[in-house]
Amino acid sequence: MAHMRTIVAVDIGGTQLRAAAYKQNQIQPFTQKRVETKADEPDTFGRLIKLLEDIWPKNETVHAIGVSSPGPLDPHAGVIMSPPNIKEWRDFPITAKLTQHFGIPSYLDNDANLAGLAEWKFGAGREHRNILYLTVSTGVGGGVIIEDRLLQGYHGLAAELGHITVQADGPLCGCGQQGHLESYSSGTGIERFVTEQLRAGRDSILHLNAHAKLSAHTISEAAKKGDALSIEAYAIAGKYLGIGVANFLHAFDPSIVIFGGGVSQSGSLLFDPFETSLKERVIHPRYLEGLVITKAELGDDAGLLGARALAELKLQI
Amino acid sequence: MAHMRTIVAVDIGGTQLRAAAYKQNQIQPFTQKRVETKADEPDTFGRLIKLLEDIWPKNETVHAIGVSSPGPLDPHAGVIMSPPNIKEWRDFPITAKLTQHFGIPSYLDNDANLAGLAEWKFGAGREHRNILYLTVSTGVGGGVIIEDRLLQGYHGLAAELGHITVQADGPLCGCGQQGHLESYSSGTGIERFVTEQLRAGRDSILHLNAHAKLSAHTISEAAKKGDALSIEAYAIAGKYLGIGVANFLHAFDPSIVIFGGGVSQSGSLLFDPFETSLKERVIHPRYLEGLVITKAELGDDAGLLGARALAELKLQI
Repeated sequence: MAHMRTIVAVDIGGTQLRAAAYKQNQIQPFTQKRVETKADEPDTFGRLIKLLEDIWPKNETVHAIGVSSPGPLDPHAGVIMSPPNIKEWRDFPITAKLTQHFGIPSYLDNDANLAGLAEWKFGAGREHRNILYLTVSTGVGGGVIIEDRLLQGYHGLAAELGHITVQADGPLCGCGQQGHLESYSSGTGIERFVTEQLRAGRDSILHLNAHAKLSAHTISEAAKKGDALSIEAYAIAGKYLGIGVANFLHAFDPSIVIFGGGVSQSGSLLFDPFETSLKERVIHPRYLEGLVITKAELGDDAGLLGARALAELKLQI
Repeated sequence: MAHMRTIVAVDIGGTQLRAAAYKQNQIQPFTQKRVETKADEPDTFGRLIKLLEDIWPKNETVHAIGVSSPGPLDPHAGVIMSPPNIKEWRDFPITAKLTQHFGIPSYLDNDANLAGLAEWKFGAGREHRNILYLTVSTGVGGGVIIEDRLLQGYHGLAAELGHITVQADGPLCGCGQQGHLESYSSGTGIERFVTEQLRAGRDSILHLNAHAKLSAHTISEAAKKGDALSIEAYAIAGKYLGIGVANFLHAFDPSIVIFGGGVSQSGSLLFDPFETSLKERVIHPRYLEGLVITKAELGDDAGLLGARALAELKLQI
């Protein structure tokens, strides 16, 4: 087709840099490659350019580049502020650098926002215009679509949904604040609770071990064996996840809630207490009418597909 | 001007029904009138029609009617579900009724959303595209503008910002849930705290009186005389208001926060502890860069002007 556009998408992760080229209306990339991020080696941008040249389509015009990166970042200015694993990229103007090198528009947003955008365009949210996406893994992140638009905010810092206070005097969050959703419902929060209880002498089939940190996965395995402490840890995570999602329904009133991230694979261990809590905490039953609660469909490709969706949205294709 | 539009606006309140006719680009109405709601008399709709006929412009074509009402309501369907003071209006399809009677489009949304929309179009938020409006009075209500659009949500129930949980095991809210922003920071919340403390024998210049309920205003007067209990009541309200607004910055990332409602007239009594709390609770200083925190400009006319702004937005004028 004459007006078919081609997009190059980049997913900057802590362990891997990924890139792929997509033709409009084809969900599968026609070229793709991944390399290690190599956290402590210099010239990450050089490696990124090399990666992009490797996957650059030979006989196609590329119309734009979309980039997904961990935050904090400024999507309006296209600046990555302090990515967790690339020390040289402090306030790094990645879209300006890419546009300078390749001569085409480049767009940036954070991984959670773009995973939400990917689910809206290609995944579980395809039939929806108002979407709440939550990733529950080491941390809790959010992406919000309102009337088919990505919620970005004035500084581009909207939808930091893990850092909503649900218990003002609650436990410490990784960010240094107290009582955030993330401090209860993330893998880190689940591990913290079990560790504290074991230190206090609580009985469990799990034990503290100087050589192996407890993981949310180990705890879920113990829970499946009937370990009361581990079951309680997930029950607390689910309870506060329900309180957090009730808050988000009251704030955004979406038609679908999509869960991504490793901890959201915990099944009824997490989602039974979640559902009980959500139903208790919602202030009007209409919020739940027709509300779909489901899992993300796109898995590891959400970053690339979200970066692609952002570029397509900006080009209005 | 040939293309100048005329809008009729309606503000349905618990004590008054108000209506006004506005010409585009004129902030003042050219006709207006108010009558009592008369809560317990039947035929409120008949009185409303009469009121509209009284203010209907004689030599102008009216292009649309905008209606502001207390919630809960469905703005998409134009249905008022259960207004606090008009018992006969259960699931009342007000926009369909008005359109049937007057033969022009009618639009509905709730008072807090429309006060926010009015401030965006005519008030303190005129230069802003991303707005958080909070009314702090008997309750706490919200209105959110994102990229020049009113946030309504799938069921039209978005921005119920008084009913965000900030302390999951906190005090009871008027809605029956626990630990909502409204249960701490509304006039009702301030009164509840002082009443509880007085019942527990706390020393104060205020006293419980079977004939006169304590009001947030009485408490603010006592605080200005140095009453420690009253000062503490406002300090708690301000602290949780800061926690709530931090949550809303993390969720919406606006460029302006506008406060309306009687309790927001309490000055430094409320806003000193609010500012301290907000600065403590925000997760990244960039949220506060360039952020304007200010008072609503439109006062009692916010409902009418918001209803007008809604109609103008829908007509795209």
